[in-house]
Amino acid sequence: MNALAVDVANWDAFLAAPPSDKLEFFRKDGRLYDCLFSQQFDRALIDRLCGLADHMRSVTKTRAGDDFLRGLLSHRRAMLYFSQPSTRTFLSHMSACHILGLKVMEIRDLKTSSEVKGESQDDTIRTFASYVDLIIMRHHGAGVAERAAWTLNRSDRPVPVVNAGSGADQHPTQALLDVYSLKRYLGGVDGKHIVMVGDLKRGRTVRSLSYLMKNFKDVRLTFAAPPAFAMNPDILDFLRRHGIPFSETTDLDTALPDADAVYMTRIQDEHDQGGESAKVDYSPFHLNSLRMGLLPKHAVVLHPLPRREEIPAELDGDPRVVVFRQERNGMWIRAALIAHIFGLDDAILARKP
Amino acid sequence: MNALAVDVANWDAFLAAPPSDKLEFFRKDGRLYDCLFSQQFDRALIDRLCGLADHMRSVTKTRAGDDFLRGLLSHRRAMLYFSQPSTRTFLSHMSACHILGLKVMEIRDLKTSSEVKGESQDDTIRTFASYVDLIIMRHHGAGVAERAAWTLNRSDRPVPVVNAGSGADQHPTQALLDVYSLKRYLGGVDGKHIVMVGDLKRGRTVRSLSYLMKNFKDVRLTFAAPPAFAMNPDILDFLRRHGIPFSETTDLDTALPDADAVYMTRIQDEHDQGGESAKVDYSPFHLNSLRMGLLPKHAVVLHPLPRREEIPAELDGDPRVVVFRQERNGMWIRAALIAHIFGLDDAILARKP
Amino acid sequence: MNALAVDVANWDAFLAAPPSDKLEFFRKDGRLYDCLFSQQFDRALIDRLCGLADHMRSVTKTRAGDDFLRGLLSHRRAMLYFSQPSTRTFLSHMSACHILGLKVMEIRDLKTSSEVKGESQDDTIRTFASYVDLIIMRHHGAGVAERAAWTLNRSDRPVPVVNAGSGADQHPTQALLDVYSLKRYLGGVDGKHIVMVGDLKRGRTVRSLSYLMKNFKDVRLTFAAPPAFAMNPDILDFLRRHGIPFSETTDLDTALPDADAVYMTRIQDEHDQGGESAKVDYSPFHLNSLRMGLLPKHAVVLHPLPRREEIPAELDGDPRVVVFRQERNGMWIRAALIAHIFGLDDAILARKP
Repeated sequence: MNALAVDVANWDAFLAAPPSDKLEFFRKDGRLYDCLFSQQFDRALIDRLCGLADHMRSVTKTRAGDDFLRGLLSHRRAMLYFSQPSTRTFLSHMSACHILGLKVMEIRDLKTSSEVKGESQDDTIRTFASYVDLIIMRHHGAGVAERAAWTLNRSDRPVPVVNAGSGADQHPTQALLDVYSLKRYLGGVDGKHIVMVGDLKRGRTVRSLSYLMKNFKDVRLTFAAPPAFAMNPDILDFLRRHGIPFSETTDLDTALPDADAVYMTRIQDEHDQGGESAKVDYSPFHLNSLRMGLLPKHAVVLHPLPRREEIPAELDGDPRVVVFRQERNGMWIRAALIAHIFGLDDAILARKP
Repeated sequence: MNALAVDVANWDAFLAAPPSDKLEFFRKDGRLYDCLFSQQFDRALIDRLCGLADHMRSVTKTRAGDDFLRGLLSHRRAMLYFSQPSTRTFLSHMSACHILGLKVMEIRDLKTSSEVKGESQDDTIRTFASYVDLIIMRHHGAGVAERAAWTLNRSDRPVPVVNAGSGADQHPTQALLDVYSLKRYLGGVDGKHIVMVGDLKRGRTVRSLSYLMKNFKDVRLTFAAPPAFAMNPDILDFLRRHGIPFSETTDLDTALPDADAVYMTRIQDEHDQGGESAKVDYSPFHLNSLRMGLLPKHAVVLHPLPRREEIPAELDGDPRVVVFRQERNGMWIRAALIAHIFGLDDAILARKP
Repeated sequence: MNALAVDVANWDAFLAAPPSDKLEFFRKDGRLYDCLFSQQFDRALIDRLCGLADHMRSVTKTRAGDDFLRGLLSHRRAMLYFSQPSTRTFLSHMSACHILGLKVMEIRDLKTSSEVKGESQDDTIRTFASYVDLIIMRHHGAGVAERAAWTLNRSDRPVPVVNAGSGADQHPTQALLDVYSLKRYLGGVDGKHIVMVGDLKRGRTVRSLSYLMKNFKDVRLTFAAPPAFAMNPDILDFLRRHGIPFSETTDLDTALPDADAVYMTRIQDEHDQGGESAKVDYSPFHLNSLRMGLLPKHAVVLHPLPRREEIPAELDGDPRVVVFRQERNGMWIRAALIAHIFGLDDAILARKP
């Protein structure tokens, strides 16, 4: 392990250190090993993973290519450890594993686990690592996925950890699939104007996506949100530091005519402290046919799903609404990520479609 | 899609339309695509599926044949989406998938799904379709499986839907396995006398099986039930319209000596509105050694399981009680059904056992 | 089936009979078929299984060997039926199945099963046997796994049953992995001094391990426990009958300097009748760095996990604490056990690593 700027032996110090100080700790053999926060994705890695995902899609156009991919990790096992309800992220990761042939074991219901017998989270993770070769985890607790990777990397049986959503903040593979979708439908992210809409304060997807923008050139962001759910200052500071122009508005309609992509989000009322969601009129931040009329023909509408009323089902027929294709992109970019973690990029890219 | 007699764009009108008007909508490439109600099974399809199931069984007598079948859909994934408790139907479908090599993902506990975040059932189904190639679903709500197929067939990513029990009425693969069992143990269904026993009013298996009888010649039915749980008039009307002779009785003993098959059912007290099950003496509709003595030697006793007292375990040694073999037939006929949906019939039938 | 000393037709008599009278009933084709209690393991079988596990590990050092093992049972399906919370044992068995290529189906949440419809346990088990080729089960009820094997062996579709923990007493595969760990880290069990520590009264692992000691020569046991949780007289009687020397103590420190292995256990407070665990000072039966100083360098510390305070995490860096390697041994010895049940020993041992 390379020399790090942070004290690895002290968890509290480690956790508090900035991501940039920890990047090396979560790499191995010259590449990403644990995927924990979106700050780990630089431009080169984003391009590599998106290209790999595209290539994997083309390889699976034939049955032989499909079988080739499924043979790559058929001798490996993955654990899906999800302590939070999540159909979509769960199935997406499981499908990604299946594409590469990984056997999957799942722990979803904490009542069936040894935690009821008073086992520490560290021991639970080490136990998983005894049986599997990859841990994909979603946890309600902030930093839990990072702690898992920290614990395993210091044990005699490390296995890679993929954070599938941890606490209120980090959901790196979601950010990755969002960028991948932007690249696919806009032909790239450089120079684009992206409008993020809705509950920006509490939505971790818009936060992670904003972080990733530093990897692209000449991107402009517009945050359209009710004042109570405006984007947090930490993200705005981040954008200023990286010279990424942005504006804030409460008037979605003015932002649409100039947008290349509209990233919609639902209200995150599960994070309400005292009924604040009910006090907000969210309807100005819903799409409808009038607003779709304001949006350029080349633009796309994204949404991390699940949605409520912010994109009515009547709009699904509009080709600019790509939310279910975006969802499917998630499966492919996660398959690419896992392939990368296991060092399979070159073998896959060498395979002719 | 062929011209249909029903307005596909209007769900309420579509749902209310008779099955015969919708058959084409649930077919693709000249064959069954979504399996939703037993009215979709005509004689040719029943014979085809039963023959295919028999052939698959013989193919798996060798390891090479087993591997051949498992290779057919090893590049495909299925979703088992079960919102109702069901061990048997769940395992049977999962095993059927395994026989053909399908990877299986399961959603059983609605608490772990995105429904808790307010997602519509349509979006949940479309999400499944993003990741898998087949959806097998059991739902407490009537018409939910049909709605899923309706939604997907109108989307840009349709995948086939198999109804594994929907609401109080439809459970088409159960009807299929019952007919398959009759064919296997009686050498065919034409000309047979079938006695259905028990809670006929609320048992969906006896209702579906009765519908399927129109595909066979010279079948006679006897319904032996307590008056409170007699077969509903809609089924009796159906039989009259199709010229299928039937009789009703409260005296099981008189029906047995002439039976080719006895189809037993348990009391469906989970559907009680106000304790009506407790008011009925169900014991005259239980089998026992005396009644087995009334039954011809060639006859068979079927039951959809789970059973309670209506077939005492002491009778399991009687070779006419084929209920666990019937259960296993379900796995095979479902494997045949899935193979048919994926257009694999000819490839399988061409394979020498 | 060979003549047995016990009446097979009568369950109560069968259950009450001593294990030695039932060994033949749970064997088939000259080898173990159902694995239910640790009395089924004799020295030859223990040595065979441990050798097989070692060999399987070496075979999987290459990808070709890995694929070879996974091909052996890729045409078979296993059921994991766990009515009790257990992450570790569940994952360990599932991984063992995956190593041999078995497809796995799981029933963990009894609310999703047919038991809610009043099905008997016998029928549930027979249903599982309709679909799978192996049943691995953990149940809170004593004798339930034995009943399952008894039911199936008398049916026309027996499949082997592996007891993954049944009631308060039997957990044979845990005992097997403990012995396997002793063999691996001590170079054998003959002549060793094993110190068992903690809640010996209610811990089934120490009970099973004590039974297995009769297969080895010159073993000495020390039981270090608080008086309230001392080893039960039935085990002490067993040891006396088999001439295995043992001593009891409440002073762990005096036992450590002479130990080859220390088998730690947690307090089993889930079995409390009336708060008895809280009345005991368990700290004299915890390891710490002082006590590790008393332990010989060659000795090992085992624990069935999950642990609480009895082995503080600070000691994990000590190479003598092998508890997570022990856990992984469980996966391998279970894979060996399943391979043995399916008669694959010779094919595997013939495979060069």
